[in-house]
Amino acid sequence: MAIRAIGRIRTPFAEAAGAPIQPAYAQGIEGRVVLDEAFGSALDDLEGFERIWLIYWMDRSLPYRLRVVPYRDWRERGLFATRAPSRPNPIGLSVVRLVRREGAVLHVTDVDMLDGTPLLDIKPYVPAFDACPRSRAGWLDAGAASRERADGRFHGDSGREPRRRS
Amino acid sequence: MAIRAIGRIRTPFAEAAGAPIQPAYAQGIEGRVVLDEAFGSALDDLEGFERIWLIYWMDRSLPYRLRVVPYRDWRERGLFATRAPSRPNPIGLSVVRLVRREGAVLHVTDVDMLDGTPLLDIKPYVPAFDACPRSRAGWLDAGAASRERADGRFHGDSGREPRRRS
Repeated sequence: MAIRAIGRIRTPFAEAAGAPIQPAYAQGIEGRVVLDEAFGSALDDLEGFERIWLIYWMDRSLPYRLRVVPYRDWRERGLFATRAPSRPNPIGLSVVRLVRREGAVLHVTDVDMLDGTPLLDIKPYVPAFDACPRSRAGWLDAGAASRERADGRFHGDSGREPRRRS
Repeated sequence: MAIRAIGRIRTPFAEAAGAPIQPAYAQGIEGRVVLDEAFGSALDDLEGFERIWLIYWMDRSLPYRLRVVPYRDWRERGLFATRAPSRPNPIGLSVVRLVRREGAVLHVTDVDMLDGTPLLDIKPYVPAFDACPRSRAGWLDAGAASRERADGRFHGDSGREPRRRS
């Protein structure tokens, strides 16, 4: 299993602290997907899709821990019950809006990843496959914290993991 | 960028031909996610979620081509405008229903992957992050083929890519 970057994602976010934690909190923020030229023709037919999945490698996240305090909670949760970026395989998943294609470059909005993030895959967003609007969402349904921007807890840059409530 | 399997996905599908092409066409089909024991505690708090994303490595797909005839169409499309399993990084993405957890094993339904597929990541499905039910879906909106099961076109097992319409 050998992965390789097929391009880079350009965004306004040089570090995690202050960056949106999900595309849902990044509405309208512009970015670019700069695909390696060799893959350009694989973008044909993509412009008909309003949104696309970006799958990427969160190359600046800290090593994972099995239990973490996620951004939108105050207590520890099992890592796989969170979307925290520090994971055994730090693969990121974000649905962004596709504005237009220029050759091997996609102009997108709703970007929540760090600038320069290695791109692994692009998939069209298909509501019939991907949209489950009434799916129960565990601790996130039960009254989550209102945080929409990251701090440094998973990246080690400015900002720190907040103290736990006792 | 070094990925590793964190477990295996067990399904009824030994080969692609005849397997569902998406969870949407695999409703109720049972499978298991067998996580390496070392990661067991990272599943805490997951059972509150009705659905989870499985991110996996499509280890038996053929090498990619930049343009493919996807399962639900009769003509070639750019690879990244399709969900075809032969990709530069053959990373699969499926939303499945979580039935119950038993230690490091998740019982799930709606599985569409091949038996023994290496698991890369598990993320909770969060409608506020992941559900865009009215997003336009390009050629898939424009009158797709009704195919719900795979053939061998992306795996080289039984079944062949159908002849193109001239």
